[in-house]
Amino acid sequence: MSDAFYTLKFTEGELSLIDQRILPTRIEYFPCRTSADIEFAIRDMVVRGAPAIGATAAYGVYFAAKEASSLYAPDNTAAFEKLFFETNRFLFNARPTAVNLGWAIERMESHYHREKGKEIESLLASLLSLADHITSEDVEINTTLSGFGSEVIPESATILTHCNTGALATAGWGTALGVIKTAFHQGKNLFVYADETRPRLQGARLTAWELTMEGIDSALISDSVAATLIRDGKIDLVILGADRVAANGDVCNKIGTFMLSALCRMYKVPFYSAFPVSTIDFSIASGKEIPIEERESSEVTHIQGVQVAPEGMKVYNPAFDVTPHEHITGLITEKGVLYPPFDKAIAALKKDVIS
Amino acid sequence: MSDAFYTLKFTEGELSLIDQRILPTRIEYFPCRTSADIEFAIRDMVVRGAPAIGATAAYGVYFAAKEASSLYAPDNTAAFEKLFFETNRFLFNARPTAVNLGWAIERMESHYHREKGKEIESLLASLLSLADHITSEDVEINTTLSGFGSEVIPESATILTHCNTGALATAGWGTALGVIKTAFHQGKNLFVYADETRPRLQGARLTAWELTMEGIDSALISDSVAATLIRDGKIDLVILGADRVAANGDVCNKIGTFMLSALCRMYKVPFYSAFPVSTIDFSIASGKEIPIEERESSEVTHIQGVQVAPEGMKVYNPAFDVTPHEHITGLITEKGVLYPPFDKAIAALKKDVIS
Repeated sequence: MSDAFYTLKFTEGELSLIDQRILPTRIEYFPCRTSADIEFAIRDMVVRGAPAIGATAAYGVYFAAKEASSLYAPDNTAAFEKLFFETNRFLFNARPTAVNLGWAIERMESHYHREKGKEIESLLASLLSLADHITSEDVEINTTLSGFGSEVIPESATILTHCNTGALATAGWGTALGVIKTAFHQGKNLFVYADETRPRLQGARLTAWELTMEGIDSALISDSVAATLIRDGKIDLVILGADRVAANGDVCNKIGTFMLSALCRMYKVPFYSAFPVSTIDFSIASGKEIPIEERESSEVTHIQGVQVAPEGMKVYNPAFDVTPHEHITGLITEKGVLYPPFDKAIAALKKDVIS
Repeated sequence: MSDAFYTLKFTEGELSLIDQRILPTRIEYFPCRTSADIEFAIRDMVVRGAPAIGATAAYGVYFAAKEASSLYAPDNTAAFEKLFFETNRFLFNARPTAVNLGWAIERMESHYHREKGKEIESLLASLLSLADHITSEDVEINTTLSGFGSEVIPESATILTHCNTGALATAGWGTALGVIKTAFHQGKNLFVYADETRPRLQGARLTAWELTMEGIDSALISDSVAATLIRDGKIDLVILGADRVAANGDVCNKIGTFMLSALCRMYKVPFYSAFPVSTIDFSIASGKEIPIEERESSEVTHIQGVQVAPEGMKVYNPAFDVTPHEHITGLITEKGVLYPPFDKAIAALKKDVIS
């Protein structure tokens, strides 16, 4: 993680989040002291990126427990649990697509079930400790997967990426952008095209900012420029993140990902998705089962508060799309790079993760 | 043309242009009284859309003649011509891709060559009259091509369009959006998805505005949403414009067009381009010969004046791309709808236009 900023940091009862709604023109931190603050921060995209959402939600569960603590008795947890689980459900509903949100909440709740019966202070300390662990573990996972991923990057390469998958999208370092950064620090000669990623402009606002800070040679493009770069042989590989991955290797990721994958398929350009294993939803057979979040019209009709479409215009604004596994060259995880057939590779990984 | 606004209108020595840089939040008109005003209006995209640029440039040539008029003598046009042609060259260089700009200037110059030797007042009146004719003729051409184009639109259809090809892109009525409007007024049951069309947002700002004013049921989407709509069978046909068409049917149009054509090809969705015959550049064999304008970084890093990317970030900002004729179902013109093989159809059209 760069020293110049942090994505999330917990100190003295407060989770501080870099406010990703206003980057890159100002660096401001958004303080969260309640579960409602956390829910708002996730829903309004103060924090975004599946792994960063997961870590943030873990602290949300800690706040939920703290808020319900007056109802807690070591020998009678019923009243506590009613409020605690209700609050967790509220956090869970902040955003429907990224699986890491549910994964972090479930992990915190499983921990609660193991620890319940303890005194409240001890229980809360234990939950906070797990949230801290989920956060630091994410950074380790990202550096590990970046090491594996860097092996698919040639000594000299022009790479296209989409959305933001850097330190800002995670507890630190990043997934797909982490891979790029690792390859860059290995001395590889890289040029990166960053899609601006409408509607929220995570590429322009966040990825361009991280690339600039790292000193990686790069250019920003409108999303529809990528197609001609791919056709014209100007892209050696595409690497981007994932918000949820199905058991067959279908990747749900930021809107625009499918378009890139289709063009890569058509023009035979390698296409990789990088993510921690926690992004895999082993319970779903294919991407068809993933709920696609539709966000408000104003994300398209207004840009940073400026109106760019006429009053009353309807908008269709899905935040994600699903890329079929047939379009994917490799899936980069902290357990290594998976190759087709992905269903078999993911089944083997599941066995490995569970055992 | 709608009564609510006009794209361009010449009265009392002034060409008034609706300022397309600030639509749809305000309707303001930009007055042009010199060739320099016209050159600025084209370059800065006060006016845009290949046919509208052509009509505007015709008035620019009239202004150029007027500005050089003190050098004119019916029996000695040398001094006049030096300044006149120089100014026309300056107008021609305002934007490199759309062929209609050069076409209109050439047509005005040919007219000058036929009329020269007349008294200056008579010459100027004649040039102005041709500029007026080019303008009114464009509206007629558009309604004619819209009639032909409407025949390819089913009784009930969901249509995707890109950029703006309506009244605002032309002297009136529109090309691709003209086709959609004509089909709508024929009572067809239409739903239109309008790509917002980054970086200049002509879809969000202009097409959405025209669709709203016409009362056509529609929704605005980010450009990268189109791919999933096409894949999922939600689009019956794509129809959009052209800025220059090669003799083999390759279509140069707003950046993002190629991406849509590739997806349509992949998922077998009909793909049409609509334009006046003046958009065809019979002199070039294929789209490879078309110069692609690269515009300034600020179009991507700033949106309506608001900064959305970090300082110092490089940008690659081509304004157009080339769609190969193999991806195109039909080319809609005022002479009818052309079908493959396009090279033969265009050669026949050329014979017809010249004879």
